Amino acid sequence: MSLTVVGSMAFDDIETPFGKSDKIVGGAATYIAWCASNFTPVNQISVVGGDFPAGELDALSARGVNLEGVQVKKDEKSFYWAGRYHMDMNTRDTLVTELNVLGTFQPVVPESYQDCEFLMLGNLAPSVQLSVIDQLRHKPKLIVIDTMNFWMDIALEDLKKVLAKVDVLLVNDSEARQLSGEYSLVKAAAVITRMGPRFLIIKKGEHGALLFHGNHVFFAPALPLEEVFDPTGAGDTFAGGFIGHLARTKDISFENMKTAIIVGSAMASFCVEKFGTQRLREISRPDIDERIRQFVELVNFDISLV
Amino acid sequence: MSLTVVGSMAFDDIETPFGKSDKIVGGAATYIAWCASNFTPVNQISVVGGDFPAGELDALSARGVNLEGVQVKKDEKSFYWAGRYHMDMNTRDTLVTELNVLGTFQPVVPESYQDCEFLMLGNLAPSVQLSVIDQLRHKPKLIVIDTMNFWMDIALEDLKKVLAKVDVLLVNDSEARQLSGEYSLVKAAAVITRMGPRFLIIKKGEHGALLFHGNHVFFAPALPLEEVFDPTGAGDTFAGGFIGHLARTKDISFENMKTAIIVGSAMASFCVEKFGTQRLREISRPDIDERIRQFVELVNFDISLV
Repeated sequence: MSLTVVGSMAFDDIETPFGKSDKIVGGAATYIAWCASNFTPVNQISVVGGDFPAGELDALSARGVNLEGVQVKKDEKSFYWAGRYHMDMNTRDTLVTELNVLGTFQPVVPESYQDCEFLMLGNLAPSVQLSVIDQLRHKPKLIVIDTMNFWMDIALEDLKKVLAKVDVLLVNDSEARQLSGEYSLVKAAAVITRMGPRFLIIKKGEHGALLFHGNHVFFAPALPLEEVFDPTGAGDTFAGGFIGHLARTKDISFENMKTAIIVGSAMASFCVEKFGTQRLREISRPDIDERIRQFVELVNFDISLV
Repeated sequence: MSLTVVGSMAFDDIETPFGKSDKIVGGAATYIAWCASNFTPVNQISVVGGDFPAGELDALSARGVNLEGVQVKKDEKSFYWAGRYHMDMNTRDTLVTELNVLGTFQPVVPESYQDCEFLMLGNLAPSVQLSVIDQLRHKPKLIVIDTMNFWMDIALEDLKKVLAKVDVLLVNDSEARQLSGEYSLVKAAAVITRMGPRFLIIKKGEHGALLFHGNHVFFAPALPLEEVFDPTGAGDTFAGGFIGHLARTKDISFENMKTAIIVGSAMASFCVEKFGTQRLREISRPDIDERIRQFVELVNFDISLV
């Protein structure tokens, strides 16, 4: 087994201009696992409370997600987040954050996960992410990390320690600007890749994603959709598609990373069509192939006509 | 001769976070002509005052821009605009607008322009745009129109009359939303293409451009640049590259429009590198070819790796 995923498994309560989800299953590692398991088996590391539905764990297990690294704290509650999206779906207000089991999370890497080739560190405290890297006896072939402005605000030194040990960083455009102190994303990429990660992916939501590596840059659009119903988890789903494709093909060339970003974008375009992980549970490989074909049509042009 | 360009030729005074231009030559038709003349001869229709530099007119003429349709009002002043860009370069404040000759502009289509195959109507009062269409005895092969929110606010009925007679509309994302009353750009495109134009191009500045036609959609990114020095005229330059490529190839298929959008995006990426039309005056065909090659690299991925 080659892909290990670390992150939250939680409850979300989401309000968008189109409706309310009520309390549903969410969390970065949940989205990543639902998505990446389309491409490769997953070794999951997370923590949940006694309130987390057994059916959800069974469903993931049935898809090839190994839950040996998921701690279940029977007498505690799962992480809970409630938020409300604005009309543009790019900005949101947090209404409630209850850390619960996540507040004291100390991940333990099971012995059976030690052969990890691909490590996906979902958004978590940098010290927790670092602890997982440090528990691995062999450096994985590729470490991908997601983070957010919150950790830049309160744990920047820890974050810098993690960045020095990873290969790919995923952030959004405003986070890239905050981390680098540069407004231009091209300049921001130059600064950030000097902090450690050789590859930087800047997610721009409905405006697509950029991949920077040395002097190379690749751009993948988001699929123009009639409705973005719920953007929650889109970034995690993108990460799951990206690392899932890389783990399946075991090819970490820049060329294959470009394809991985298209796969991630295609998967994220499903995620936003319904609340939570619902759409990810419905789709099958032919749906994914058809969606990727739409991306080819979206960007393909005939250079011979120039 | 096949391409006719209609629009303002003017003075701009631009302030950006990087500097001040002082009073320089600008105007939609100026940018369009400098750009499109890389690809095809241009028949220009505009109006300037006695203060407009003769050297500028001579330079355009030397590039193959026919100025027979440019009225020179010796005792009046040219249109003048002063503005200041914010840090994000997507928003700006207008500091001064002096219509001058543009306030009473009545375009006259010279007899020698009657064989017009491609008509590019730069941003102007819709009634002025309509007057040019109505003066043409034969419908051009393709009419492309640019407009802005200002005309949607004060001359919507006139604008709708023009839209019913054109093939391609160019607007930015907020204008597409305003004109259609739809937030989703996919839904906006469906509404707008029912107003007349079979093709809709939505410009998103640094986030690229979308082309809608029936159920087809194509996306072209903007080139990620170290610095956007001055965005003035980028949209007009995009239009000039788009129509210039179409007029040169005389092919108005959706496939060739996709290529035309890449050409337009490449030309716009030059425009923003210096104040005003300066960068457009410096570049030659090899520069353009190299820039288009960068766009191919930016979006090209290997589908066989999926």
